[in-house]
Order: sequence, then structure tokens, then C-alpha cells
Amino acid sequence: MPRNTNNPVGSNVTAVNVQQIPGLNTLGISAARIDFAPYGQNPSHTHPRATEILVVLEGTLLVGFVTSNPNNTLISKVLNKGDVFVFPIGLIHFQFNIGKINAIAIATLSSQNPGVIKIANAVFGSDPAIDPGFLATAFQLDKNVVKGLQAKFWMDGN
Amino acid sequence: MPRNTNNPVGSNVTAVNVQQIPGLNTLGISAARIDFAPYGQNPSHTHPRATEILVVLEGTLLVGFVTSNPNNTLISKVLNKGDVFVFPIGLIHFQFNIGKINAIAIATLSSQNPGVIKIANAVFGSDPAIDPGFLATAFQLDKNVVKGLQAKFWMDGN
Amino acid sequence: MPRNTNNPVGSNVTAVNVQQIPGLNTLGISAARIDFAPYGQNPSHTHPRATEILVVLEGTLLVGFVTSNPNNTLISKVLNKGDVFVFPIGLIHFQFNIGKINAIAIATLSSQNPGVIKIANAVFGSDPAIDPGFLATAFQLDKNVVKGLQAKFWMDGN
Amino acid sequence: MPRNTNNPVGSNVTAVNVQQIPGLNTLGISAARIDFAPYGQNPSHTHPRATEILVVLEGTLLVGFVTSNPNNTLISKVLNKGDVFVFPIGLIHFQFNIGKINAIAIATLSSQNPGVIKIANAVFGSDPAIDPGFLATAFQLDKNVVKGLQAKFWMDGN
Amino acid sequence: MPRNTNNPVGSNVTAVNVQQIPGLNTLGISAARIDFAPYGQNPSHTHPRATEILVVLEGTLLVGFVTSNPNNTLISKVLNKGDVFVFPIGLIHFQFNIGKINAIAIATLSSQNPGVIKIANAVFGSDPAIDPGFLATAFQLDKNVVKGLQAKFWMDGN
Amino acid sequence: MPRNTNNPVGSNVTAVNVQQIPGLNTLGISAARIDFAPYGQNPSHTHPRATEILVVLEGTLLVGFVTSNPNNTLISKVLNKGDVFVFPIGLIHFQFNIGKINAIAIATLSSQNPGVIKIANAVFGSDPAIDPGFLATAFQLDKNVVKGLQAKFWMDGN
Repeated sequence: MPRNTNNPVGSNVTAVNVQQIPGLNTLGISAARIDFAPYGQNPSHTHPRATEILVVLEGTLLVGFVTSNPNNTLISKVLNKGDVFVFPIGLIHFQFNIGKINAIAIATLSSQNPGVIKIANAVFGSDPAIDPGFLATAFQLDKNVVKGLQAKFWMDGN
Repeated sequence: MPRNTNNPVGSNVTAVNVQQIPGLNTLGISAARIDFAPYGQNPSHTHPRATEILVVLEGTLLVGFVTSNPNNTLISKVLNKGDVFVFPIGLIHFQFNIGKINAIAIATLSSQNPGVIKIANAVFGSDPAIDPGFLATAFQLDKNVVKGLQAKFWMDGN
Repeated sequence: MPRNTNNPVGSNVTAVNVQQIPGLNTLGISAARIDFAPYGQNPSHTHPRATEILVVLEGTLLVGFVTSNPNNTLISKVLNKGDVFVFPIGLIHFQFNIGKINAIAIATLSSQNPGVIKIANAVFGSDPAIDPGFLATAFQLDKNVVKGLQAKFWMDGN
Repeated sequence: MPRNTNNPVGSNVTAVNVQQIPGLNTLGISAARIDFAPYGQNPSHTHPRATEILVVLEGTLLVGFVTSNPNNTLISKVLNKGDVFVFPIGLIHFQFNIGKINAIAIATLSSQNPGVIKIANAVFGSDPAIDPGFLATAFQLDKNVVKGLQAKFWMDGN
Repeated sequence: MPRNTNNPVGSNVTAVNVQQIPGLNTLGISAARIDFAPYGQNPSHTHPRATEILVVLEGTLLVGFVTSNPNNTLISKVLNKGDVFVFPIGLIHFQFNIGKINAIAIATLSSQNPGVIKIANAVFGSDPAIDPGFLATAFQLDKNVVKGLQAKFWMDGN
Repeated sequence: MPRNTNNPVGSNVTAVNVQQIPGLNTLGISAARIDFAPYGQNPSHTHPRATEILVVLEGTLLVGFVTSNPNNTLISKVLNKGDVFVFPIGLIHFQFNIGKINAIAIATLSSQNPGVIKIANAVFGSDPAIDPGFLATAFQLDKNVVKGLQAKFWMDGN
């Protein structure tokens, strides 16, 4: 049963965690199904309380994570059906459908309540907004560019 | 002994963790001193393995964190000398010196090896770089703006 | 790349844990691929240090686990491609290919070193053997039946 | 105060865990007293959430556990009054009174809620029963022998 | 806002833990502010569930802890403003204001519910009292001295 | 095999932990045998990393622990052969042989490396000694009494 991926990033995450299934409580594990449109992506995010293993069911994904400061090394790989990849706890990671067809993956996480932080939404789409001058310095962006991003992500996520 | 805060963000973090002090191993705690120039900031970052408590020693800081998806609620507060604030494990947070004088804070973290992920450096300054088209979609930025950010943060962090 | 399932139980488990990939250490997760011949089974076993999530890649599996004493309730389900099932830590569980074609599943476990205890092998195939009279009482089997099982499983597993 | 050991295996386990004593919650420990008739046994079982230390108060016990797959090594020892033995978390283990008099032991477990899985009851006495053909293959037993075991253990445990 | 330190030991501990702030639950951290009169002390105590990091905000403190048996080594240090010191989980420790002015410190603890055991109060001020003859042997004190201590600490703490 | 209890407190603790048996590592449990002369005691102490369960093998013991501040409630009980008692992690506790014959108990602890802090030795017998004036204030004792205790416990423990 394919999920609707008709959105700006072209993906859809269906979580199976302790909020959907209370019986997972104390079991220390949860899962999610991710559907990708062609060239769709699951953009940069972290799970504050879980390591993740991804299994590709259909299609071809480019996946990666970035190690912590000060190295910021990008570890990435192209995965095909049946391939498996690990995203260590708390690190920023992403998946990108580089094939011309839909892709499906199953993510398993080492917590019944892993949480998800979407980087762009947390930084530019928080409610209320973070001071745009502060973000302009942090991201070395023009203040008006930051205001534009805040308008986009605030609408997107709220 | 004030630390050098002469850098683009105007802050300096001096960590005291298990890599500096092996005796902290298994004790489940570490600390850092953070010096801020006037209007300096400790930009958006996360600690993948620790909750943090911040104590202000000198000056006035605006601090905040953003809750996880889908709420992305910004929780922020102005702190003066002796004030204390908690950043929950894995959440994106920041500190901003809103006073006209230097500020000093002590951060204590619930792990001997908390790790730090600087959001801008991990996203735009990874080595090798993440595909700029991919990031342009994720952050809803023009691809050339992304390339410019990658040039800045790659030089900054590498 | 299908694995060889030409053995008495008609299945083959390919583990991906900290013994194969030292980088999994401290990440608290591991995985395994399980190939099933038609009517092949992954017989009753436990993982002493992990909860397991199973994802079916190909085929149709009957899976189940038994709750702890005194209830001993069997929880079972038929899974098709893309279906997901959870086996709680330490409980006896199994998978059975009830389809006429090969089946493939990916198991993810909430430990980098989950361990596996195959019930029949541990009880009847230990080295040295457990006293057959003791096992005959425990399993309410004739002592000669126990001796026959010990001969089979000792050869099988050693 | 001796417990009644008049049953097929000749033993009686009196548990002291968080279900009997709620005050044990969060303390991470529990205990049990085990009474053995002469030649009585505490048959093969596991604790899914605890390591166990056994202390013999009276009598002489042969105790053992089997290591995980693929070694399945039996580690066993004869214990007299005051002797101590450790059963690692999740491994199959047993105790057997090899003396002509009653024996008493105290088991301490590293969890307030260790759980117990009696192997024979979980495999052959589950409710509902596991498919006998499936078990016949797994245990290399005749299907009718499996059905006989299921009749015995279903009556015994339900 | 200085706290009242007009008491026999000349100090005042203001705790910030899960009992004051339920939102700290599961975050694994808490804090306390400690005010010291000149020559005031925070007498020997332990935290049964936390390692502690102390930061000096004002004044000069002599701090120390004693390692576990059989070494009983005293590790101590004089701390000035901005200095940091670690007290490992469960060890007996103390702070002593050796300056002529008030001192202030912030303690951070690696648990949302660290607990505190004041040694003198627990040993000599328990309710009901521990048998004085028993304590006289343990502390190699005259029985009447023990009774005098019990009278003082019972009044002090109850 | 009785142990030598010919010492000021009339008891002898024989530990079985990860320092004696490296195989206990990661198992989260350890044990100790305690021999008591008539009227011997195991004086006030804590285990910084473990809850303890005590089983009496021989004799009659008065055992107790004191809850944390501010209650300092003494929970005590007389135990006979086969009785079991729990000392929660980090709390001060003791055992006292109130019978006319030797007593033997087995303590099991919820850590492979529980540690032990003997209160009198840590407070009055540390090496180097804690400032006697500081201790005199803390324990409301005359400074010369403190110096006498330090002489006794320093000799005793060093």
C-alpha cells in the first residue's frame, strides 16, 4: 500500500513507535516505513534517542550521515534492495531516492520513543521564530534570506 | 582567565570531558566553560549523548532550545548571573550574549563523552560536501546560495 | 544474492553484529538477513540481550513468540512483504515460511551483540551433554528418546 | 518452613519480586527460594531480564547453564551448603538435587522483574499450541510424540 | 538573592530536582545552589544515585571526597571562582568555605533524583535511633558520647 | 569453612566480585559471604553502585538501613536462617549478630563492582586526614575527640 509522497520533499514517513503501539513500551525498539517518490528525499534530521538501521525494500537510495564536530565527515553509500545501513544515535542523516522509480525503506530504531528533529524545520520553522539576526550570523546568511526561510518553513510546519 | 572569542560567532567553548580527563570515564558527567564576546553566540548545536545544564557566571544570555518534530516549539529565556537552564538530550539549542559585556557560562552534561554537532557545520561544512541540489531542496534555498555556504563552512571548519 | 538453505530446517541466518562489524560497538543495534526455503523454518530460539523487529522482504511467513511463565501464551501472525513484527527481549520465538516460494526477512535487534540461543541445540545438543535422565523428567520424554535427540543434535551442532 | 515439592519435577519456587513486593521497584534486584525433594529438579529455564546468583542453604545440587549458539557449551558444577554459582542473563540453566535429602537454595536476580521462561512449557505447553509439524521438524521428533508432549504440558501448565 | 546560612554548619542547599521540577523526569540531570557563610561547611554526605560537578560562583572553597574501602584516600582541592570539581557517584564528600566572605557554588548532578545522605544525621540522627552500644563499637566512641550525639542530631533533624 | 572474625568489629567479609572473578564483567551481579562472631557486627557502610539482598545461612542478625535526608528513617528487622532482606542502592546499612553463636550470611549485589564505603573509616580514617576542626563542627564532637578517632581509624585502616 504505497503512501502519498506528493509534498515538497517527495517522501512520507509512517512511524510505528510507542505512541502508536503502547505495547512497545520498555522493549527499546521501534520502526518506520519510508516511501520516496523518484528523486524524493528524507531531509537532514536526527533521532535524539536512537540509533537507526535502514533496510531498502524497493528502489535505490543514496544515504549518509555526518560525524560529530570537529570532523564533520560525511559517510555515504548507495543502497539497493535488501541493503542495510546504520545511522549512529543523534547524528544528522538523510536518504535520497536517486532512482527513477518509487523507493521504499524500513527504518528500525533502538528506542520505543526515538523522537525526530528535522533540522530545517527546527532551525527555521520553530514557533515562535528564532531571532533572524542570530540565525544570520550562525548560518552566515543574509538576514533577509533567513526571514524568507522562516516564512517558508513556518508555513510548512505549522 | 578569559578565552579568545575573536572568531565569526564570538564565543569559545573549553570542554572538560573524558578525552581531556580520562578519570571521568564511567562517571556519566562532563563540563564545559563557554566565553562570549558582547553579542557573541554559541550557535545551534546538539549533544547526541547528553542533557545539559547551563549556569551563568557573568553577563546576560538569551538561551533556547527547539522541541522535536512536529511541534518545533522554541523554549527560550533570558539568564543572568547564577541562573540555571536545562537543554534536554539531543535537542537543538543555542546561547546568545545579549549584553554589552563579556559573558561566561558553565555547561554540565550528563555523559562523560557527550559529543557536539554544530548544525551549520554538519549540514554545510561536511567533508566531503553533501550534494548541493539535495540540500537546496531540503532547506528551500537556491542551489548557488548552498554552494556559497559550503565554501564558507568548509573553509571555516576544515 | 540468495543464501544456501539446504539444511534440516531449511533456513539460513546471516548476522550483522559487532563481531562482524566492530563499528557497531556502543550503537546498541544489529541486524540479520534470514533466507527461507519453501516450508523452511527458523526454529524456536531466544536472544538473551535484544528485542527484535522483523521485516519481510519476500514471501509469506508465520511468526510467533510465547509469553513468559505462567501464561505461556502464543502470539502469532502471518506476515507478507513489507509487514513488521516485534519479538520482545528474551522470549522464545520462531519464523515459518508457509509459502511455496523462497522467503527473505530482515531482523533488526536492539543490541550490537544480541546473542542467540537455539532451544533444541542448547537443550539436547550441549557439549558435554546434559544428563539424559534429568532431561527425560523435565521434558516428560522416554530416556531413550532423549538419548536419540542428543545423538542427532550433537552431530548437528558440533 | 519447607514448601510442597509434590509435583512431577519435585521442586517449588517461591519468588520475591516486584509483583509480590512493589517496594522493589527501581532497586534492580529480586530473589526466590527454591525447595527440592530428593532427586527433584528445577528444569531448564531462562530469565529474560536478569543474571542469577544461587546460594545453597541445604543439600547438594548439580547446577549448570549452556552457553549461546554456536558453542552450546554446558558449564556445570556440584554445589554444597554455602556454595555460590552464577547463571548469566538469558542463558538456559537448571538445578538438580543429587542428594538423598531435601535441598534448599536462594536465588538472587539482577532485576526487580526478571521473568521466567520454562523451556518445556513454552515450547510444548503454549496456549494455543504451536503447530506440531513445525515443532517436529525443529526438535527432530515424530509428530505424534510432539502431540503427546503438547497434551501433557498443556494439562500441566493450564 | 543570598540564602539564609544562619545554622550550625553555616550553609544552605537549594535543590532543583525532579521533585521541584517534574519536567526533569527522564532527563538524567539536576542541580543545586549552595550558599556558605564565612567558614561555613556542607558537611560529609553522599548522593546515592549521582555523580556531582561543582562550579564556584563566588568565594573560595576547600572541597574533597574519600575513595572507597580499603584505600580511603582523601582527594581535596582549593577552588576559586569559576573552578570546577567532580565528586564520583556514591562517595562521601564535603565543601568548606575557607574564605572570610560568603561563598556560592552550583552543583550539577547526573540524575533527576540524586538523593542526599547526610552522614552524621543518618548515623546519629535516625528515627528511631540505632542502638548506641552498636554505634559505640562501630565508631570506637564511648557509649555516653554516642548518646549525646544522638540527642543533638535527633533534635537537629527531626 | 569459617573465616577469622578476631578483629575489633567481630566480622569478616569475603567478596566475590569482578576483581576476584573477571568473568562477572557485564553480568551486573556479585556476592559476598559475611561471617560474624557472637555480637560481632558489619558496621555502617554503603555500596555506591549496588542494591544488596542478604540471606542468612546461620544464626540471628539484626539488620537495618537509614533512608535518605531529610527523613533519616531507620528500617530494621531481626533475621533468622533463610530470611531475606533488601538494602537499597547507596543507603547506609549494617548487620549485627545478636545471637550467642557465630552467624553466616550471603550478600548478593546488583553490580559486578559494587564498591564499599565504610563510614567510620572514610570519615575518620582517610589518608590524609580530613581537617579535625571541620569534622568537629560536622559531627558536633570535641576537636580532641575527633583527633583521637583519627588516630584509631588511621591505624585500623592503614
